[in-house]
Amino acid sequence: MAKVKKQPRPKAVTPKGFRDYFGAEVSDRAEMLTRIAGVYHRYGFDALESSGVETVEALGKFLPDVDRPNEGVFAWQDEDDAWVALRYDLTAPLARVYAQHRNDLPLPYRRYAMGPVWRNEKPGPGRYRQFYQCDADTVGAASVAADAEICAMLSDVLEVVGIPRGDYIVRVNNRKVLNGVLECMGLSDDGQRDAVLRTIDKFDKVGEAGVRELLGKGRLDASGAYIDGVGLTDAQAEPVLAFLTSKGADASETLAQLRDAIGDSAVGAEGVAELEQIADLLAAQGYGPDRIVIDPSVVRGLGYYTGPVFEAELTFEILDEKGRKRQFGSVAGGGRYDDLVKRFTGQEVPATGVSIGVDRLLAALREKGRIETHETGPVVVTVMDRDRMADYQAMVAELRAAGIRAEVYLGNPKNFGNQLKYADKRNSPVAVIEGGDEKAQGIVQIKDLILGKQIAENATLEEWKERPSQYEVARGDLVAKVREILEQQ
Amino acid sequence: MAKVKKQPRPKAVTPKGFRDYFGAEVSDRAEMLTRIAGVYHRYGFDALESSGVETVEALGKFLPDVDRPNEGVFAWQDEDDAWVALRYDLTAPLARVYAQHRNDLPLPYRRYAMGPVWRNEKPGPGRYRQFYQCDADTVGAASVAADAEICAMLSDVLEVVGIPRGDYIVRVNNRKVLNGVLECMGLSDDGQRDAVLRTIDKFDKVGEAGVRELLGKGRLDASGAYIDGVGLTDAQAEPVLAFLTSKGADASETLAQLRDAIGDSAVGAEGVAELEQIADLLAAQGYGPDRIVIDPSVVRGLGYYTGPVFEAELTFEILDEKGRKRQFGSVAGGGRYDDLVKRFTGQEVPATGVSIGVDRLLAALREKGRIETHETGPVVVTVMDRDRMADYQAMVAELRAAGIRAEVYLGNPKNFGNQLKYADKRNSPVAVIEGGDEKAQGIVQIKDLILGKQIAENATLEEWKERPSQYEVARGDLVAKVREILEQQ
Repeated sequence: MAKVKKQPRPKAVTPKGFRDYFGAEVSDRAEMLTRIAGVYHRYGFDALESSGVETVEALGKFLPDVDRPNEGVFAWQDEDDAWVALRYDLTAPLARVYAQHRNDLPLPYRRYAMGPVWRNEKPGPGRYRQFYQCDADTVGAASVAADAEICAMLSDVLEVVGIPRGDYIVRVNNRKVLNGVLECMGLSDDGQRDAVLRTIDKFDKVGEAGVRELLGKGRLDASGAYIDGVGLTDAQAEPVLAFLTSKGADASETLAQLRDAIGDSAVGAEGVAELEQIADLLAAQGYGPDRIVIDPSVVRGLGYYTGPVFEAELTFEILDEKGRKRQFGSVAGGGRYDDLVKRFTGQEVPATGVSIGVDRLLAALREKGRIETHETGPVVVTVMDRDRMADYQAMVAELRAAGIRAEVYLGNPKNFGNQLKYADKRNSPVAVIEGGDEKAQGIVQIKDLILGKQIAENATLEEWKERPSQYEVARGDLVAKVREILEQQ
Repeated sequence: MAKVKKQPRPKAVTPKGFRDYFGAEVSDRAEMLTRIAGVYHRYGFDALESSGVETVEALGKFLPDVDRPNEGVFAWQDEDDAWVALRYDLTAPLARVYAQHRNDLPLPYRRYAMGPVWRNEKPGPGRYRQFYQCDADTVGAASVAADAEICAMLSDVLEVVGIPRGDYIVRVNNRKVLNGVLECMGLSDDGQRDAVLRTIDKFDKVGEAGVRELLGKGRLDASGAYIDGVGLTDAQAEPVLAFLTSKGADASETLAQLRDAIGDSAVGAEGVAELEQIADLLAAQGYGPDRIVIDPSVVRGLGYYTGPVFEAELTFEILDEKGRKRQFGSVAGGGRYDDLVKRFTGQEVPATGVSIGVDRLLAALREKGRIETHETGPVVVTVMDRDRMADYQAMVAELRAAGIRAEVYLGNPKNFGNQLKYADKRNSPVAVIEGGDEKAQGIVQIKDLILGKQIAENATLEEWKERPSQYEVARGDLVAKVREILEQQ
């Protein structure tokens, strides 16, 4: 008889660039998103959940990050040979949704959205192909009051999730001011304008001196490679640098310096006026420069947005992978974009919004000790007598009814050591034990596992004797004693 | 000069079989899932979020619904030509995750997962290609205590989300009992066994008489087509029908009838003993037959699961699309399956779990009036003077600080009627008006829009005069008055 060829076993692996999230990683994120949604909702924003799949045609290519190595999406053909793809952000779907449902939606339309997005990019350390975004946008409001509102809301969001005032700053810039600067420089050549925009984008990395070199002849970068410059003279480059470094001691000083930088450009003046209005609106609501500040050095997305641009930065210091202190940095960004819906309808629809980097904000909260990195596990009721499972189930039912997370050990109960090892792996705070003797006496043994661990690690023999970590209580006092221990932990 | 060909505009449409969810549709689901997660967590289950994308190899073909028209997934090749696909459920990823991370996970491993899944099936009314699932499973626990726990938890979940006791029933069956029945029928032929299993699966649709015909010669179905039968004699078919209809007045009567149906089959006896243990465990925790009942007529998934099978049904009546009364029906199902992880590791790992039909449960809650179908919108502060936007923003800031959902009208304020139309479209409860006169007098006008609408619809002129729906209050009393109106609505 011919031997049947054995099917090889499938490999149990995530596809490249994807990962799984366990326990507190999931619930902490859910909790944070719920809080953010609460703020968005209180500001009058409505939830929207579009599908993960869009037509490739509707998605278009509208990513703000021009430097990305690969603009790829995950795409395939449906049964009618039409190309569909996983969404790469939440903004492109918003534009499609707004164009599709505009007759049924209020105008202006404030919406928030949160969920996974997918990018077909080369994965790297901490860089995954699926990650969460959490956006709020206002479609159909031309007034900068809409931009100011987004900034105020962003500030509220950061405080509500647990970033204290003083540990963050929302910085606001305006693309129109930059346009004014370029206009008064007399850069009529689109290629040169784009080159200047691309150079400005590197301000965060290379600083003032670096941008000066890159606008001029060029620059030797850290790797030793020579980067060609835009070819402006020092005098020509000056207004751009004046713009980038025009942040003054207060808003009026910054605005005055910006007015100098834009010369007599009309669009520049419009941009400065918008920044002034935003500052005034925010001041009237009590959002001072300790929370939101006009800062022309914000360049992220300046090439993409069409008006005000905002970025939320966390200002406390962390140690980087090399042990050097650095500021935590950006956790959210956004701005005004007026042409997304136009792609579909031909009509220009003003829109402004913000996107929060969910994973970075979560990392920041862990850094600040605002969320525990290790979740406390459930109370574990051990199984001493497998025929009395009903008794043990009744115990956990009582504990749960009192709001206490609890479970019965459901593995093979034969080896009691395995049960305590399991409780340890679950990070359980308390174990409950009721063998035959205890049952006969109407009592239960309750082990404080956290205290037990501390004692085992640190205590002298005397302390160990004085501080018992195991208690014998009447069965009827089970819930009360467990609660008492949990409250002390 | 050649005319540049204009790029056609993209169509603003969702791909076929996908849809968008707006406002309360999203937040009600989120709220329901949060409540369910709370119950799962209290039972000691840990959250797991695997990625939406899996290797096709890891997904395999393990769908419980054998009747699906198309087993398709959405799949594509990655950059290494390996096939990957969107997950079609949350169970196949659990098997992969458990096999991949088993050295780091506790044993038993209780996990819950909630999120979208995708199926490449023909869309139809109410049948989408992306929908939510919400699962809880215990991996590595062979004891039926794990199955009983899932049933108890399912019962708690239904009550916590708002299905009152009496309006649902969790029914429990056991595949082993059916195996015992088949064994004592002497069906040695695998083909005939499978045919009997497939026939039983139609019990819900065709009832006892239908199954009897289908097990025998065959049956004329509703469309007039003749369906060939399995070809058993009436006597041969009898044990199957005895099994399906063996539910008695109480658990002991049901169990006695099942013992009759399985004859001297060992696996059958094992199955009956398991059902008895489940009933005993649940009774000890206070889950009586008003909540969870042994019921051999549960056939859904009986061909897929290997031990206990459960199904939650809502028993209250609704009107179907033709206006006929019918029971709401199934909202969750699950059971024990012991070979999912084996695919990866070669080791058989016992597992049991439940999957909640999120959309059906939401529909049920709407049906019961447990969640509002129309969300109340935000308080709308109108803009009478566009230069005083800061004043209006200060008002909404005060309202929000008091926990009241509020927004400023951000459209073009020129036409006041548009502002009220907007408030109406948002389903706003209250509008706030402060023109120049009001400002000068230090007052604001507050319109009760809900009362206003009621009066406009129903009231006589006298009533209309007596019940003002607009109030003039001091600016300082804005928040207090709005709160008062909201509380009365």
